[in-house]
Amino acid sequence: MTTEVVLNQISKKYGKQEVLTDISLKLKPNTIYGLLGRNGAGKSTLLNILTNRIPATSGKVLIDGQPNLNNDDALGKIYLMSEPNLYLTRAKVFQIFRETANFYTGFDFELAHQLTNKFGLNESLRFGKLSTGYRSILKDIIALCVDADIILLDEPTLGLDANHRELFYQELVETYADRPRTFVISTHLIEEIAGMVENVLLIKDGRLALDDTTESLLARSYSVTGPEEKVREYTAGLNVIGHDSLGKLRSDYVFGKLDENRVLPDTVSVEKIDLQKLFINLTEQSDEEGQK
Amino acid sequence: MTTEVVLNQISKKYGKQEVLTDISLKLKPNTIYGLLGRNGAGKSTLLNILTNRIPATSGKVLIDGQPNLNNDDALGKIYLMSEPNLYLTRAKVFQIFRETANFYTGFDFELAHQLTNKFGLNESLRFGKLSTGYRSILKDIIALCVDADIILLDEPTLGLDANHRELFYQELVETYADRPRTFVISTHLIEEIAGMVENVLLIKDGRLALDDTTESLLARSYSVTGPEEKVREYTAGLNVIGHDSLGKLRSDYVFGKLDENRVLPDTVSVEKIDLQKLFINLTEQSDEEGQK
Repeated sequence: MTTEVVLNQISKKYGKQEVLTDISLKLKPNTIYGLLGRNGAGKSTLLNILTNRIPATSGKVLIDGQPNLNNDDALGKIYLMSEPNLYLTRAKVFQIFRETANFYTGFDFELAHQLTNKFGLNESLRFGKLSTGYRSILKDIIALCVDADIILLDEPTLGLDANHRELFYQELVETYADRPRTFVISTHLIEEIAGMVENVLLIKDGRLALDDTTESLLARSYSVTGPEEKVREYTAGLNVIGHDSLGKLRSDYVFGKLDENRVLPDTVSVEKIDLQKLFINLTEQSDEEGQK
Repeated sequence: MTTEVVLNQISKKYGKQEVLTDISLKLKPNTIYGLLGRNGAGKSTLLNILTNRIPATSGKVLIDGQPNLNNDDALGKIYLMSEPNLYLTRAKVFQIFRETANFYTGFDFELAHQLTNKFGLNESLRFGKLSTGYRSILKDIIALCVDADIILLDEPTLGLDANHRELFYQELVETYADRPRTFVISTHLIEEIAGMVENVLLIKDGRLALDDTTESLLARSYSVTGPEEKVREYTAGLNVIGHDSLGKLRSDYVFGKLDENRVLPDTVSVEKIDLQKLFINLTEQSDEEGQK
């Protein structure tokens, strides 16, 4: 069973401030998405509109062809894990699992118990007594145990230590293998998800700047390395999305076509970029290196 | 001017659960501390007790010799930046600066304006409209602009993208040079603070496991690298806090004395650990590699 999610020209304004502009996309079934973008790009707003937690100013979200507005059937197919704390501070962990299961039928209690064990989360603690890290862990566990076709994760590793971050992604990949579904992961620790992302959504200044498979992105990304001056000459006018320097050596990262008419000097080499570097440079691209 | 902060046998229980046990320490003036520990170790609880946001079950916090309980004079010398949102959602950024300045006299408005510019934070936005990342940024700016001798930062980079994380630490080091004071930084992105930390506080299971200068820690930390079997033989019984493997090669990270009587095989080399590796291994030490 799969669920089709379509965003149709979604825009969102807060007063005069336009946060999202004309976003159209279709989520593919059984795919792990990386939702990338800088602080304030509009990633959380987009996820909140998808799940009808906030209304769009214009445009539609269709879930299996039905608008997501006041539509519990449709919304039961999507789960959003996010930073705001929606639980009563007095509620105990196991009570929160039960509550969740009331709305999302098919909640996997067995997996939930396994995961609380692995993460060292005591199920009889009250939500209000959990640390920032353990609140994220609780929400992450719920996200993996809910029987929904679309799982949206907004900063799932907020406050998690390195071991717990690694454990979470391991478990995500395992549950994904057992029960394929669509994940959309938004995080600022990009290098930690680079290996698992199959499709990238990049938001820049409220617009969808990229919606493409990792494979296709890698196929048109290059690093050009050599003496600084020669590299700059070779990449002038190309779409340079970032660079690294080491002494007088420079690597320019180019996204998009190289110019086949240019002669590559002997001292300059062109190679593929690895995924982490590509993701980081696409996302963090600084202003002086404007993208076309 | 400096402020002396002393913790005297601080313990904290929630019901039967002991969160902190018998913590005594003294914060040195004009020092950057790294407060390290895994999720749930008790780091945030400690910082909240320091600033009297929650009471200790036993023990005392003394600020310039005075208890911090109901003592605005003492508490005016300490600022805690943390995850809970203490501001009204309707309050605008510039209003929050003014409010802060009412309690913390000497608030640096000029620096605050410079920083909102650098981070791209619009001062007339309401707190409730800020994204998770920008809420952290606002709190970070306040922490750098407050004229207090002790600045406690509890996960200052929660939700910040990579550029903003780097910018924040740059600005921190700059304000520290201009106006020396004590910072205590708690974060799970340890590698990002390794270079600036002068003193490490490590909390394990609610106890202060380490309170030492970075220099002194490095002086008794080693990596032992070579064929897996030889390395295991050489480090058997030593305090191995972590390891890395590459094919059949292994590096064991040892914290504490080596055994001078052991013969080092030709194929095995002993070197210093770099700071990032040391911090990460001290903090994330897994259970099977118990520390003495």
